[in-house]
Amino acid sequence: MDSGFKAISSGTATSPQGFVAGAVLSGISRQKELDLAILYSEKPCLAAGVFTTNAIQAAPVVLSQKHLQDRSAQAVVVNSGCANACTGDAGMAAALVADKLSISPADVLVASTGVIGVPLPMERVRTGIPKITLTSEGGHELARAMMTTDTFAKEIAISVEAKPDGFTIGGVAKGAGMIHPDMATMLCFLATDATVDAGFLQSALQRAVNASFNMISVDGDTSPSDMVVLLANGLAGTETIDDRNGQRFQKALDEVCLYLAKCIARDGEGATKLIEVTVEGALTESEARLAARTIAGSPLVKAAMHGNDPNWGRIVAALGRSGAQVTETKLGVYLNDVCVMKQGRPVPFDKQKVSRSLASKEVFLRLYLDLGRGESTAWGCDLSEEYVTINSAYTT
Amino acid sequence: MDSGFKAISSGTATSPQGFVAGAVLSGISRQKELDLAILYSEKPCLAAGVFTTNAIQAAPVVLSQKHLQDRSAQAVVVNSGCANACTGDAGMAAALVADKLSISPADVLVASTGVIGVPLPMERVRTGIPKITLTSEGGHELARAMMTTDTFAKEIAISVEAKPDGFTIGGVAKGAGMIHPDMATMLCFLATDATVDAGFLQSALQRAVNASFNMISVDGDTSPSDMVVLLANGLAGTETIDDRNGQRFQKALDEVCLYLAKCIARDGEGATKLIEVTVEGALTESEARLAARTIAGSPLVKAAMHGNDPNWGRIVAALGRSGAQVTETKLGVYLNDVCVMKQGRPVPFDKQKVSRSLASKEVFLRLYLDLGRGESTAWGCDLSEEYVTINSAYTT
Repeated sequence: MDSGFKAISSGTATSPQGFVAGAVLSGISRQKELDLAILYSEKPCLAAGVFTTNAIQAAPVVLSQKHLQDRSAQAVVVNSGCANACTGDAGMAAALVADKLSISPADVLVASTGVIGVPLPMERVRTGIPKITLTSEGGHELARAMMTTDTFAKEIAISVEAKPDGFTIGGVAKGAGMIHPDMATMLCFLATDATVDAGFLQSALQRAVNASFNMISVDGDTSPSDMVVLLANGLAGTETIDDRNGQRFQKALDEVCLYLAKCIARDGEGATKLIEVTVEGALTESEARLAARTIAGSPLVKAAMHGNDPNWGRIVAALGRSGAQVTETKLGVYLNDVCVMKQGRPVPFDKQKVSRSLASKEVFLRLYLDLGRGESTAWGCDLSEEYVTINSAYTT
Repeated sequence: MDSGFKAISSGTATSPQGFVAGAVLSGISRQKELDLAILYSEKPCLAAGVFTTNAIQAAPVVLSQKHLQDRSAQAVVVNSGCANACTGDAGMAAALVADKLSISPADVLVASTGVIGVPLPMERVRTGIPKITLTSEGGHELARAMMTTDTFAKEIAISVEAKPDGFTIGGVAKGAGMIHPDMATMLCFLATDATVDAGFLQSALQRAVNASFNMISVDGDTSPSDMVVLLANGLAGTETIDDRNGQRFQKALDEVCLYLAKCIARDGEGATKLIEVTVEGALTESEARLAARTIAGSPLVKAAMHGNDPNWGRIVAALGRSGAQVTETKLGVYLNDVCVMKQGRPVPFDKQKVSRSLASKEVFLRLYLDLGRGESTAWGCDLSEEYVTINSAYTT
């Protein structure tokens, strides 16, 4: 990590000053301990958001975008167990939270995750919300309440030295369906006590998302509920951070998002390992991104990695269909740093040894295209029988 | 089928007049009965071909495209067990076959299917080719010799009544890796004894492929070896078929390609059922194609179908990310003709009953977008644990 950055032990979305959270089991989800949570800032926040590009948008996504138009927000309410997509509206949840916290409903963002097409049981929201107790340790409850098929809570906070005053960025995320995060999959709530210019806050968030959450998703695979939100309440007393002095804020935000994104990839449904795909020497950065994401998302590459099979032909074939320009005679391929193809020709390698190295918890695939300076990294996970088992009987 | 069209019993690529074929076990593949085959026309043919769009092209694809530049060919040699991709050239196999048949090497097309990056053992090709006996029943051997993870041979022939003379179109295909036909997956060899204009032959083949093989493939998923070739030797004595009178030829060719394409989808690795996705009322035909292919290729839809899970939210989410224009309030969704969504709202349905109906060998998903007249159908298969098992240890 950058010098002057410090990971906070047990850091979470409520690590920055002035943020509190809490959760309850409302009964929306039948299988969980916690399913309904609130994140709240004592002080009104500037807010930024990045939302699903899916043509079908769940009611909470539509409402939260509307509430973010004025770039301000003070609370987020989130439930798991029901995506509230293709069903109804999300205004009631916002109104209930606004009432509890004595703020305007327009300053409440709403997020839901779970099965599509099942109406949100409003009675449970209505009885659950008053029972939520907000504390400065509540980020942990928030992280757990968001989980669906996730196997662990995803949370982090980083404190950043700065003048005149340091600041903190924390966040929580959920997501486990990795190949096609199709099922109201990805939610992330970020908080900071830095004072940030509103325009910069939005562009910094978009940049961080592009390099993290957008690199763990196969191109175009977004659910109707995907949402990343960043709240900045300014309580740390920093000078206003904007384009001129925002480099360190951007870096810290990138680190937080990248950590959470890699948690999601690692926790892919049925996954046993994290796969990191780096493409170097592409003609452009955008071609490198395309290639890295296509390889990280290829079912055949993922299945081979599950079996520790150094079947690099599939990596090359996925590269070939990615849309990135490739000159076969220039291509180099590395599995965990072992060169298996050089200038387009197979290089003999110790298959047993490489297979053993692929059995680790993190696998690194590197492709060198030798065409330009475009470089990008994407993350994925292996494809296991367990993935199919989880997803072949999700609602039955 | 069209009136005047007749499926030939045990029809195959050698059903049209003047075509013979045969195969041997050369030892290129270690697990099969037959792995090397030749298809030959007694008379030189006009020929058309459609090849992989992958940026990485196997040597046989490069050579066959070159040999097709003059739109003539007389033989095809094909092996399974090795894709001859990223390795060497394919000229030797063509030369050996040309020698055996006393024709020009430039009239021999070459195809290989199997693992990428393993050099073709030329010694086995050299000793195998002389042993191949060509007969008019040999299409069946050809179909079997091409198989890799296929569980059944894919062959068909249709005879067409026409004046002054009828004609026959026959073909064989291989392919089983369905989601990402990534592994030298799809080969198809078509033969006809009709007399066909060379330009029309190519455009008719492209049209037939677009409506069949290109609708069982997830967008852009092509292997370095994909190839569909059509040979026309004119022995049936028809008048020359071209744009003016080619409608029935096109229809028959479409039927042959569609049958073989559906065989490939049905035989998808680990698959237990064929999934047909029809999108109606799209703004344009191309948007309908995009939507149908995206849904048919969605891992989560495929996994749900494997579990007979009527989880239609996944279908809607896949539609939403397909790139086709969608207005949620107009959308209708049908599972095996049972309406589960109408005008964007869930319709109550008997979940147990629909789940039972999804347990059949063919499942029909229909989406009505109500935006225009674009319509298209795509085919896929379910995603099973078996798919992962097959693909997680392909080379080890």
